[in-house]
Amino acid sequence: MEYTQRLNELETHSRRLDSGAACRKEWINCVVEYSENFLDNLSRLNHKTIHEDNPSDDGITQYGITDKGSNIGELVNALDTHVFKNGLESAHANYFAFVSGGALFPSALGDLLAGVTNKFSGLNFLAPGAVKLEHMLISWIASLFGYPKEHAGNLTSGGSAATLIALVTARDSSGLRPNEYERAVVYLTKDTYNCVHKGMRILGMHDVILRFIDFTNEWQMDPKCLQNQIRSDKKAGLIPFFIAISIGTGNLGSIDPIDKIADVAEEQDVWLHADAAYGGFFILVDGLKHWFKGTERTDSIIIDPHKGLFLPNGIGAIVIRNGRKLYESHKLSGYSNDILQDVEIDEWSPSDLSFELTRPFRGLKMWLTLKLFGVTTFSSALEEKMLLANYFHHKLTEIDGIIAGPKPVLSVVLFHFGARNRSLSDRMSRELMRYILSDGRVYLSSTTLDGIYHLRICVLNFRLHRENIDLLLSIIRVNTEKLRKKNNLKRLKVNDEC
Amino acid sequence: MEYTQRLNELETHSRRLDSGAACRKEWINCVVEYSENFLDNLSRLNHKTIHEDNPSDDGITQYGITDKGSNIGELVNALDTHVFKNGLESAHANYFAFVSGGALFPSALGDLLAGVTNKFSGLNFLAPGAVKLEHMLISWIASLFGYPKEHAGNLTSGGSAATLIALVTARDSSGLRPNEYERAVVYLTKDTYNCVHKGMRILGMHDVILRFIDFTNEWQMDPKCLQNQIRSDKKAGLIPFFIAISIGTGNLGSIDPIDKIADVAEEQDVWLHADAAYGGFFILVDGLKHWFKGTERTDSIIIDPHKGLFLPNGIGAIVIRNGRKLYESHKLSGYSNDILQDVEIDEWSPSDLSFELTRPFRGLKMWLTLKLFGVTTFSSALEEKMLLANYFHHKLTEIDGIIAGPKPVLSVVLFHFGARNRSLSDRMSRELMRYILSDGRVYLSSTTLDGIYHLRICVLNFRLHRENIDLLLSIIRVNTEKLRKKNNLKRLKVNDEC
Repeated sequence: MEYTQRLNELETHSRRLDSGAACRKEWINCVVEYSENFLDNLSRLNHKTIHEDNPSDDGITQYGITDKGSNIGELVNALDTHVFKNGLESAHANYFAFVSGGALFPSALGDLLAGVTNKFSGLNFLAPGAVKLEHMLISWIASLFGYPKEHAGNLTSGGSAATLIALVTARDSSGLRPNEYERAVVYLTKDTYNCVHKGMRILGMHDVILRFIDFTNEWQMDPKCLQNQIRSDKKAGLIPFFIAISIGTGNLGSIDPIDKIADVAEEQDVWLHADAAYGGFFILVDGLKHWFKGTERTDSIIIDPHKGLFLPNGIGAIVIRNGRKLYESHKLSGYSNDILQDVEIDEWSPSDLSFELTRPFRGLKMWLTLKLFGVTTFSSALEEKMLLANYFHHKLTEIDGIIAGPKPVLSVVLFHFGARNRSLSDRMSRELMRYILSDGRVYLSSTTLDGIYHLRICVLNFRLHRENIDLLLSIIRVNTEKLRKKNNLKRLKVNDEC
Repeated sequence: MEYTQRLNELETHSRRLDSGAACRKEWINCVVEYSENFLDNLSRLNHKTIHEDNPSDDGITQYGITDKGSNIGELVNALDTHVFKNGLESAHANYFAFVSGGALFPSALGDLLAGVTNKFSGLNFLAPGAVKLEHMLISWIASLFGYPKEHAGNLTSGGSAATLIALVTARDSSGLRPNEYERAVVYLTKDTYNCVHKGMRILGMHDVILRFIDFTNEWQMDPKCLQNQIRSDKKAGLIPFFIAISIGTGNLGSIDPIDKIADVAEEQDVWLHADAAYGGFFILVDGLKHWFKGTERTDSIIIDPHKGLFLPNGIGAIVIRNGRKLYESHKLSGYSNDILQDVEIDEWSPSDLSFELTRPFRGLKMWLTLKLFGVTTFSSALEEKMLLANYFHHKLTEIDGIIAGPKPVLSVVLFHFGARNRSLSDRMSRELMRYILSDGRVYLSSTTLDGIYHLRICVLNFRLHRENIDLLLSIIRVNTEKLRKKNNLKRLKVNDEC
C-alpha cells in the first residue's frame, strides 16, 4: 500500500510530540526549578522591581521560530533574560502601580491541569462537569451581589471582554437599532474606566452621546445630576441607554452611590451597569459591605478575579441579573453548523453566554485557588489591603510637605508635594516621583486629580504587607527631604509657602 | 497606633496566600502526579473515550465555595471524578469528532510559567519582552501566508474572538455606517463557520444581508457566482462589505479558491477575510502549499494554534495585512485614563490591537512549544494527519456498503451507509453511528452533505496515528456487517440496491 512507507517515516517524527514520561519529567523539573527560583528571588525585599533592558541586543527575537527543536533549559534561560526580567515586576510586593493582584501560585497549577486535561468548557455536552464548575463560580459571584437565581454570566479574559458582553446585552435588551445610535446616550463619569468607551467603539457605536455626570464632593457620580440629565435628554428626544457606574475606580478607588443611582435607573428605565473590576471583591470585607448597598438592583456587573482574588492575568467575569437577556443576545443556536447537529441543547453553555466559542477552561484555576484557601483568607487579605491603604494615608499626613489625597474607600491612595501654587506643586511632585523611581526598590504610578498631578499607590498585591508600606514611607520621607534641600526650599508645612 | 493590632491579625491570615516553598512543593507534586496518571491512562488504547456521568449526584457542585480551605488532594480527586472524567475525552487518540488537536504537554508548562511570573503582555511598557515575543509569533504566522511587514495581529482566545476583530477592522476600514447596515452584504458559503454570523450579531449587524454563494463541484465557493452576485448587488445600490472564505471548513475541510476569489475581491474592492482556524497550519506541509496560493492577497486571516499546532484550547490568532487598519480600529490611545499617563506609546501594544486590555500571556505557551519541537516536527505531524485521512478514505472504499465522501483535501473524511434511497441510507447510517458509539472505544461526529447524513472524522489529534485509524476501520467493518445482518440486508455493493 502506497501510504505505508511515508506514514511510517512521518509517524517517527510526529511521535516526538507525544513525549513520554521521562521527557515530561525533564521538562517539568526545569520549569518548576525556574519557578521556585523566581518566587524565592521575588520574596527578597531588595529585589529591584524594574529590570534593565539591554538596548544593544534583539532580546527574545533572537529566539525566532525555527525548523529544529531546542533544549528546555536554553528556552527557559532565554525567557528569564529577555521576557521575565524585562519590564516591570508587577508580581513584586513593592509594586504599587496600577492594579495588580500578584498572581497566586495555585492558579498557575490550575492552568497546568486545564492544559493537560484540555476539557472544552465552552459546551455542556462536551464537558458537563467543567461547565457546571464555571456556572457555580458565576453563581457564587452573583450571590455576593445579591442577584436572583435568574442571573447568568460568563468567565472572560478580563474586564474589557466582560464589558463588551454587558454592552451587547444592554443594546439588545433595549431594542436599540443602529440608526438610533446617534440619539443613544451613555452616562458615566470622568473616572469610568475606558473599557466602556472602547467597547462602544468596537460595537460601532462611535456616535453614541457620552454624558459625563458631575462628581459629588466624594468623587462619586452625582445621582441628582444624573436624574436631571436623563430627564432633559428624554425631553430632547434622545434615548438614554446605559448608565455605567464604578465600584472602585481605577483612579481613586471610589464607589458611586449604587442604591441612589439604582433609584434613578429604575425610575427612568435605563440599563444600570457596574464596573466592579477592581473593587468588587472588597464586598467580602464586613466593614465595607455598606458601600455595596444596591448592587442587587444593577442589571450587569463585571468583576476581575485577576485583581481582587489575586489570580494571574486573564480572568474576568460578567454577571447579568436577568440571565435570559444574556442568553438571547449570545446564544449559539441558530448559528450551528451541521457538525454540531449531534449536540443537544439541554442547558445554557458558556458559548451561549459570550462571543467566544472555544476558549480556555478559566474556571479551573479560580475554583482551585478559592477552594484551597477558603473565602475567609481572601476576606482577611482584602481587609488587610484596605487597612494598609488607610495606614499609609494616615502616615503620609505626618510627612512634612506631603499632601495626602482623599481618605481611601478601598485601597488606592493619592498624594502630592504641597507647594505654594499648582505649577510648583506639580513640578516638585514629578521630581519626587523621579527620585522614588530611581531608588528602584519600589514602583509607583501617578494620576491627575482636580487637575493636580498626584503620585498614586494601589495596595492589592497579596504579597504586600506592612513592611512594604513602611519601606515606601521611608523612601518618600527621605526623598521629600532630599528634594527640599536640593531646591533650597524652607521647612515645609502643608499648605504653607515653601 | 490603632491599625497595628488588627493589621497583625489580618497579616497572619493573609500570609497563608504567600505559600512557602514546602507548601508549593506539596501542591505541585500532587498536580504533577495526577497529570502523569492522566496522561498514562490516556495512552492505553482501550481507555473509553466517553466517561459516564452519574445522574444521581450533584457532581462538582458538592464542592462549592466555602469559608474554610481544603486539601489539594481532595480537590484534585473531586476534579478527577466530576470534571476530568465527565464528558468527552477530546485529548484521546480515538476521539475523531469535531476539530481537536489534543493539547501538547509543554503548552501546559508554558501556562504554568505565565501564571507564576504573571507578565502583563497587553502593554509594551509593562512587559516589552512579552510583547516582543507575541509580535514575533504573529509575524511568523504572517510570513507563512506571505503577508508584508506592514501586517499586525493579535493572539486571541480562539477563532470567534479573532473573527470579531476582523469584522471590526473591516467595518471601520470600509467606513460602513450603522445606518447602512441594512444595505451591507456579507458573502459566504453554507460551510462558513458560524463565528462570522455570531460576530455580526455581536456587532449589532443583525440586518446585514448574507449571500450564500454556490459551491463548485469541489465544495468550494464559486468565484464566478461571487463576482456576479457582487456586481448585481452593487447595481441594486447595496454595499458589498465582507467576503468570508474558508481555508479548511469545519464540515469537510475544503479550501475555497483563494487566488480566484482574491481577483474578485480586488476588482470589486471588498474586504477579503479567510477563516483558516482549522486548516491554516497545513500550509506547513509541502504537498499542500498549492492550495494556499493567494493567501498573501487576503485582508485578514484567522488561525487557531489550539487546532493545527495541537495547543490546549484558548489560543487563536488574527493577522491583518494592513496592520495600521487594525491599530486604527482598536488602539488604546484616546481612551486612556489618567492612571496610564506615564505610559509612552512608543510602539503598538497587543491592547492596541484587540478589544482586550488585560488578558493572559498567551504567546508564551505557543513559543515554548514551537521552539521545543521545531517547526519540522509540526509539518511532519500535519502531513501524517493528512495522509492518515487519505489512507482512511482509501480503506473505506474497500468496505462493502460504505460510501466514502469527497477525497480529503486536509484531514476530514465523511462517509455513509449506502442504501437504495436517501431515507434508508440515512436511517442505516444513523444506526451505524449508534453502534460505533456504543462500542465506546472511538468517538465520531456526524454532518450533512448534500442533504445526506454522513458520519465524519477529523484527523488532527497529535496522539492519533495509523493504529487508531486501523482500529476505527475494524470497528466500522464489524458494525457495518452487524447492521447488515440485523436488518437482513443482502450483500452490499456501493450504489447497488440492498
